[in-house]
Amino acid sequence: MARYPTNGLTLDQASAIITAARAKGRELNLQPLTVVVLDAGGQVKAMQREDGSSLLRPEIALGKAYGALALGFGGRELARRAQSMQGFMNALSDIAGGKAVPVPGGVLACDANGVILGAVGISGDLSAQDEVCAVAGIQAVGLKPDTGDAE
Amino acid sequence: MARYPTNGLTLDQASAIITAARAKGRELNLQPLTVVVLDAGGQVKAMQREDGSSLLRPEIALGKAYGALALGFGGRELARRAQSMQGFMNALSDIAGGKAVPVPGGVLACDANGVILGAVGISGDLSAQDEVCAVAGIQAVGLKPDTGDAE
Amino acid sequence: MARYPTNGLTLDQASAIITAARAKGRELNLQPLTVVVLDAGGQVKAMQREDGSSLLRPEIALGKAYGALALGFGGRELARRAQSMQGFMNALSDIAGGKAVPVPGGVLACDANGVILGAVGISGDLSAQDEVCAVAGIQAVGLKPDTGDAE
Amino acid sequence: MARYPTNGLTLDQASAIITAARAKGRELNLQPLTVVVLDAGGQVKAMQREDGSSLLRPEIALGKAYGALALGFGGRELARRAQSMQGFMNALSDIAGGKAVPVPGGVLACDANGVILGAVGISGDLSAQDEVCAVAGIQAVGLKPDTGDAE
Repeated sequence: MARYPTNGLTLDQASAIITAARAKGRELNLQPLTVVVLDAGGQVKAMQREDGSSLLRPEIALGKAYGALALGFGGRELARRAQSMQGFMNALSDIAGGKAVPVPGGVLACDANGVILGAVGISGDLSAQDEVCAVAGIQAVGLKPDTGDAE
Repeated sequence: MARYPTNGLTLDQASAIITAARAKGRELNLQPLTVVVLDAGGQVKAMQREDGSSLLRPEIALGKAYGALALGFGGRELARRAQSMQGFMNALSDIAGGKAVPVPGGVLACDANGVILGAVGISGDLSAQDEVCAVAGIQAVGLKPDTGDAE
Repeated sequence: MARYPTNGLTLDQASAIITAARAKGRELNLQPLTVVVLDAGGQVKAMQREDGSSLLRPEIALGKAYGALALGFGGRELARRAQSMQGFMNALSDIAGGKAVPVPGGVLACDANGVILGAVGISGDLSAQDEVCAVAGIQAVGLKPDTGDAE
Repeated sequence: MARYPTNGLTLDQASAIITAARAKGRELNLQPLTVVVLDAGGQVKAMQREDGSSLLRPEIALGKAYGALALGFGGRELARRAQSMQGFMNALSDIAGGKAVPVPGGVLACDANGVILGAVGISGDLSAQDEVCAVAGIQAVGLKPDTGDAE
């Protein structure tokens, strides 16, 4: 029925990632989380925002995921570049219409060969905690997370 | 834990609405749908985009729901005003940054007293079919849909 | 080497489409053309602007192609809807940041099964002539053009 | 036929620059590159994005080239000013709508007298590698590259 090819993650995968990421957040008793999953082309597949999230969480979560896809590495590398190349990261944020948020919590979802199938962005608690949940979500569907740090 | 009050729909309600709306779409064998649920404050609670959706569906679905909340009536009334008051609807679209799409498929979700708890926007098939699914989703959680037509 | 999957058209296909589309334009002695090719996810693969094109041609050509992908049908159907549903098309243009130009000349490139692999947008001459060149380009690589008219 | 004068680079020159720049990238086994060529008036002449490029590469490549033309010196000088005059570069990025990316890889293409005929922007690998390819492309058509460093 569908005329568009799937580009990386399916909606079923995206939904399973969100379920597992949120479960990790509840297990760790984190602040309310917003979780966004994008396909390899940066299109939103699914999003959930837990009750009590502050206002801009969807945009921040989207920006973490989109920023990772925009340059092809996880949020930790984006954060390092925001430190070492401030002018570039400012320009990148402007180019992307704000959709490039350079902090941990934007994590690439890759297959066994390292091909990027999409990205997960989470916002709500400390960036490092957001990232833990994104990693848990990606691993729950058998994919490899890339946080921007060497393994 | 959360410091923000729930403003209308909860995430559990939003997720149940999406599940029921998509089930209706599959039952009717519609094109791939994108479903967005907003709370009473216009904040996104949840979104799902079925595999094979065309590019701008999330933005259109969001615009249908947001437009309904923006003026306080369903998409059918927005569509009528877009006919009778073109200048106003153009300005509204600009004010809203595009997030006010005046066609059927944006439906308010109300409690038994008519208090607006949120809105559902669906895009993917013909507007009238999108709307059928939004209505089904809202009814599935025991709320009253307001499509913009008198009952 | 590349970590992103190809989503529909390759660069080689996009380049061959542009070459053939421009050759058709020269054969018909048209005004200078700008040709844009997008993949199925709306990402630009290649673009060429013939010498003497007026200023906004790349943006218009991009908008024709993107608009077609945004809704999943060719520019002729977009043009019809711009007539019958003005408010919707105005809102769509706003949502898309202007990247949804509802005139002939935006043509979907499909495989034998009708799966959308990308879109071609051309601007420079009359819309109908632009479209003739887009069709020629798509056919030159063995794909099926969808202009928005029934065959 | 065309009513607009050519303003610096022709499309033939732009296409030759892209071909040579990409050949250098393949020779050096770089990441997939996106190459944009602008004329002296900042109008896009041609663009190609190699398969596997990450999402925002066309915008970044365009921003490198446009930023160079915007102030009249190559990306290395832009990068220096982004360090020494942060507020100015932030404002410049805003004024330009994001199209002023202050890093190496934006290179002016000049004639023998130093007259600026256009600019090349490349993104995909390390900035210094991107720049090597832009220089190779410009030299391949007999023009002088200006990277923003004194010779």
